Amino acid sequence: MYNFRNDYSEGAHPKVLDALVRTNFEATAGYGEDEYCEAAAKAVRSRFACPDADVHFLVGGTQTNYTAITAFLRPWEAVIAADTGHIAVHETGAVEARGHKVLTVPNADGKVTPQALEDIYLEHTIANIGHMVHPRMLYISDTTELGTIYTKAELTALRQMCDRLGLYLYLDGARLASALTAEGNDLTPEDLPRLFDAFTLGGTKCGLLFGECLVITNPDLKPNFRYCLKQCGGMLAKGRLLGVQFLALLEDDLFLKLGRHENQMAVRLTQGLLAAGYPLYAQGPTNQVFPILSRALIARLEQDFTFEFIARIDPEHDAVRFVTSWATEIEAVEALLGALGKA
Amino acid sequence: MYNFRNDYSEGAHPKVLDALVRTNFEATAGYGEDEYCEAAAKAVRSRFACPDADVHFLVGGTQTNYTAITAFLRPWEAVIAADTGHIAVHETGAVEARGHKVLTVPNADGKVTPQALEDIYLEHTIANIGHMVHPRMLYISDTTELGTIYTKAELTALRQMCDRLGLYLYLDGARLASALTAEGNDLTPEDLPRLFDAFTLGGTKCGLLFGECLVITNPDLKPNFRYCLKQCGGMLAKGRLLGVQFLALLEDDLFLKLGRHENQMAVRLTQGLLAAGYPLYAQGPTNQVFPILSRALIARLEQDFTFEFIARIDPEHDAVRFVTSWATEIEAVEALLGALGKA
Amino acid sequence: MYNFRNDYSEGAHPKVLDALVRTNFEATAGYGEDEYCEAAAKAVRSRFACPDADVHFLVGGTQTNYTAITAFLRPWEAVIAADTGHIAVHETGAVEARGHKVLTVPNADGKVTPQALEDIYLEHTIANIGHMVHPRMLYISDTTELGTIYTKAELTALRQMCDRLGLYLYLDGARLASALTAEGNDLTPEDLPRLFDAFTLGGTKCGLLFGECLVITNPDLKPNFRYCLKQCGGMLAKGRLLGVQFLALLEDDLFLKLGRHENQMAVRLTQGLLAAGYPLYAQGPTNQVFPILSRALIARLEQDFTFEFIARIDPEHDAVRFVTSWATEIEAVEALLGALGKA
Amino acid sequence: MYNFRNDYSEGAHPKVLDALVRTNFEATAGYGEDEYCEAAAKAVRSRFACPDADVHFLVGGTQTNYTAITAFLRPWEAVIAADTGHIAVHETGAVEARGHKVLTVPNADGKVTPQALEDIYLEHTIANIGHMVHPRMLYISDTTELGTIYTKAELTALRQMCDRLGLYLYLDGARLASALTAEGNDLTPEDLPRLFDAFTLGGTKCGLLFGECLVITNPDLKPNFRYCLKQCGGMLAKGRLLGVQFLALLEDDLFLKLGRHENQMAVRLTQGLLAAGYPLYAQGPTNQVFPILSRALIARLEQDFTFEFIARIDPEHDAVRFVTSWATEIEAVEALLGALGKA
Repeated sequence: MYNFRNDYSEGAHPKVLDALVRTNFEATAGYGEDEYCEAAAKAVRSRFACPDADVHFLVGGTQTNYTAITAFLRPWEAVIAADTGHIAVHETGAVEARGHKVLTVPNADGKVTPQALEDIYLEHTIANIGHMVHPRMLYISDTTELGTIYTKAELTALRQMCDRLGLYLYLDGARLASALTAEGNDLTPEDLPRLFDAFTLGGTKCGLLFGECLVITNPDLKPNFRYCLKQCGGMLAKGRLLGVQFLALLEDDLFLKLGRHENQMAVRLTQGLLAAGYPLYAQGPTNQVFPILSRALIARLEQDFTFEFIARIDPEHDAVRFVTSWATEIEAVEALLGALGKA
Repeated sequence: MYNFRNDYSEGAHPKVLDALVRTNFEATAGYGEDEYCEAAAKAVRSRFACPDADVHFLVGGTQTNYTAITAFLRPWEAVIAADTGHIAVHETGAVEARGHKVLTVPNADGKVTPQALEDIYLEHTIANIGHMVHPRMLYISDTTELGTIYTKAELTALRQMCDRLGLYLYLDGARLASALTAEGNDLTPEDLPRLFDAFTLGGTKCGLLFGECLVITNPDLKPNFRYCLKQCGGMLAKGRLLGVQFLALLEDDLFLKLGRHENQMAVRLTQGLLAAGYPLYAQGPTNQVFPILSRALIARLEQDFTFEFIARIDPEHDAVRFVTSWATEIEAVEALLGALGKA
Repeated sequence: MYNFRNDYSEGAHPKVLDALVRTNFEATAGYGEDEYCEAAAKAVRSRFACPDADVHFLVGGTQTNYTAITAFLRPWEAVIAADTGHIAVHETGAVEARGHKVLTVPNADGKVTPQALEDIYLEHTIANIGHMVHPRMLYISDTTELGTIYTKAELTALRQMCDRLGLYLYLDGARLASALTAEGNDLTPEDLPRLFDAFTLGGTKCGLLFGECLVITNPDLKPNFRYCLKQCGGMLAKGRLLGVQFLALLEDDLFLKLGRHENQMAVRLTQGLLAAGYPLYAQGPTNQVFPILSRALIARLEQDFTFEFIARIDPEHDAVRFVTSWATEIEAVEALLGALGKA
Repeated sequence: MYNFRNDYSEGAHPKVLDALVRTNFEATAGYGEDEYCEAAAKAVRSRFACPDADVHFLVGGTQTNYTAITAFLRPWEAVIAADTGHIAVHETGAVEARGHKVLTVPNADGKVTPQALEDIYLEHTIANIGHMVHPRMLYISDTTELGTIYTKAELTALRQMCDRLGLYLYLDGARLASALTAEGNDLTPEDLPRLFDAFTLGGTKCGLLFGECLVITNPDLKPNFRYCLKQCGGMLAKGRLLGVQFLALLEDDLFLKLGRHENQMAVRLTQGLLAAGYPLYAQGPTNQVFPILSRALIARLEQDFTFEFIARIDPEHDAVRFVTSWATEIEAVEALLGALGKA
């Protein structure tokens, strides 16, 4: 069985696992107040060129998103996301469960445009002040849910629009390593603090057992975050597990190496699919590939490959998703292409 | 100054006010546990042919909607509404503030169609169970936000779809009196209990000082509602004020008479606007009229008439809203038509 | 039947009712943005000597308390109250339903002492920062739930302790008129803005049909309150009803006259009870009287008087509550004392 | 430096770590829908004699408690806990943040008594129905926050009282292994399903990297839990990490062995402290030891030992807490006793 279900099917990358094993019997303070978390935070600040940022480590992505939104917004303030956005669709209403409306705008290849942002802001502020939620933050993800990436120019334009409208700009970087190493990407780690009020660096989908890193660069958003972290269930008792893993992930830019690998595997797969004549539901340069396949073919593939259903296209075809990871081997990709044959 | 701002600009209809004055010095139990509330509940059950329904009286519409949704749904369950729906747009995220996602579907003249309902339900249940909110209730309003009404056939089709999908069907009847007396309406008060798990009869926009009546017909939704009522801030100390007013409103079908009057005023206005050549932003047979006017004309009208901005159409034109009420006199309508002149 | 059940059994004081009737057919803007609310706010600012305060009018007390707390606190911040406090006991967890913990301290005759305040603050800040809620506000009521009142010295001491601990001080003045006119009171309306970050003036228990007035004096707490008001279900469509009523209540200090009257009735009752030898469950100079009576006597009294159960004292005795109001006549008090006879 | 700070200072027990390493490169389904979680659930059902129970694995304790409470209760329902209870004190209001009031009763050596339970239930139901939260669940922990344990007779009495009052009974077993192996314990794993509607088996404090196991035995509480799990941020992407660890923990009753070891270390410490003449702030047979020490001594000890502050006793003395774990060696205990000397 070859795995293309997602990028978190295996355990940890060997270097990460080694770090965990090596430090296993040490006794440290709990709740992220240990030297490993401190060192990892320092490494993040250094790599992302934000010496004054607050850095927090959490276990999961949904948890990170709603904890940050809970900490950053007041009850009547809303977060804007693409209609494909993870917080809007795939987090079981976790943001709403903490009291905030998620306003959605039509996505453009998974991305939010400045125009869509301005439109929804105006809709909520041109009249009826007090009777509608007040948009206060833009949530985007890079890579997007459709595997596409933002260019630096696009992000700069969003940043400018956010500044004009008084919005925080938040990046869900669950697959940031993939985005930063994709073909066509012109964004560097050092660009992020200038563009975002807060951003995350995802570990779960990049070779950690688990772990998301939240970097808060806007000083207004820093105070009291740890109260929220605890209240939202995100404070890990053996918090140093997060520090140990992120330290390993940042060493020698391991996260970028893993991102690059998974992109290469996906690009090969995309090229093969296109060459074979399969239409794509969405196309990007990162580690998610979305072909449209006949149900008969899907049933056949399921015998040897794991992957996910995305959407019903017509009575005979579905869009599915193949995801590559740090652990995906080229043999698996070739086997999949072989099984796909010609469209 | 003629008032077309809304249908809650004046105080109470004389018969309602008289009832309040007449009973003012009586001492009764508080919190809706008095004989007037009991009598009003009985009158509602009788008029709407639901002898076993639970009837609650609340002060305001937003309050009623989010209290009902809070009481009826579990945390992971969502309510579906048209993208124009009041709970989706104009309640400052009150439903989300109590933890529930409002899923929106594209409206058809302000209405939800069975197809849109089925589509969004399938999107949330075809895969990813547990990772998306579970749709559990459909919220509609009659009259809709665009002043249109549902036919009995449309409601029956929605009811059938709700039954098929396991959804509660909830009617926000803030302007129910207007809907029930509009041209083209074939719905009777007696139809409602069969169609809806719960529905409201709006008093605020129909001649009461304030007051919404929530009728719960589905036995599963009845228990413990008063806890929610109190917790959500909807329990009025001098609760009998609600009972007294609704008793007056139901006597001799006063609510239908008031609805009929406001519709007649609006129909006259609509006919005049169309005859004068003005385009309409939305058109329905009830008490809200939505012409598109030039900004110059709007500025001129604002000197003698109150009304509301609805949407920017182009740099020179806006859609506005004229609302008629139980208190609107034909002279006001004619004055407005006179001021409008030809398009 | 004589009514001692509560101070909101009747409708409105004649002067308040007259004002409502007189203005009934005027058309004004909704949602509290009318000239009556503006005038009433001005009258409040003037009477309470706080020219820069924000003044909001809401329908009910529970609503006012949780809306203010929602607007003033962040998610991890808690409000401290006496263990008898209304928000702690009698609001069906409305504050918690909006996400905030209510920390309780043992009451001293219904009051919070600076020592109790300091103790609970230290408990929550001496260690485990982040793992416990952070106390941020003190909630008190005057009159208290036990009918007692605070002296100016007591309030000044609480204010100083709040300043030292970084706490907001909030006064629930649901029965403020009674407190300000009680024997032993040395507090004036003009003292309140100096002592409290926000306070309420209760109308429901002082001759209005309904209505609480929230006065926010701390500039930090003012912004965006109307969003919360709407989201929390507290924005009344015909908002001017609140302005009209409060204007009448403030005219010629009517609220103080009504407070004085109800206190006089209660003092007479207390004196009679003590003279007759009945023990009191709690004793204060305001309009709530708490005798301990045998169940046999209670059963007898219930035939002619309405009143409420408070607590079981022993198998044969209960504490009950008699409340006097602006509408209580001396004949009713004498009739009650007559029925009570000797203990 | 010897560690007595807590029982989660080190990483995983070697057998647990081995299991993680051994399975690291396998690819499985995510979110707990893998064969390891299934096998671990089966092992739990078998060991705790509840073949029909639903078994869920979560990362942390606070998360588990509030997720369960969110899933089990309706908005107006409250959970009762001892005033020392973890959910009442040390979870930053996480339960309230999800909308539920935590009612507290005075603890008896960290425990809840049937009498205290009945008292608070009656307080909330004898009158004012609808105006107070409705108690619906009792939360206890075993071991308690003070290191004490419940006897089977005590739990049976609580169960009977819960049945009488219509309350769910929930056990926070964060330190269940310690409780089940303590001197004086007469509770077996097989007793739990009969006594509790739901209980947890803590892994974080018993040799796992992280992990709590929630066992739901009451069929009414089972449906739809995974929605809550996701919404509350408790669904781990690489969910099998939890299954793998719990499988190892249950194999050959490793959890009981670890519990027994930590108790033995603590008993030795307690005996030494008592022999040396130190008073104890609280005393139990489990792995938390609470001596009262002078601040001078505390300062001296802090040079070689880590431990936590618990409470200020007087200007010169504090209560502190020494915690033993599966990793505590007898040499550390003896070193600590040596450093303590005579009181």
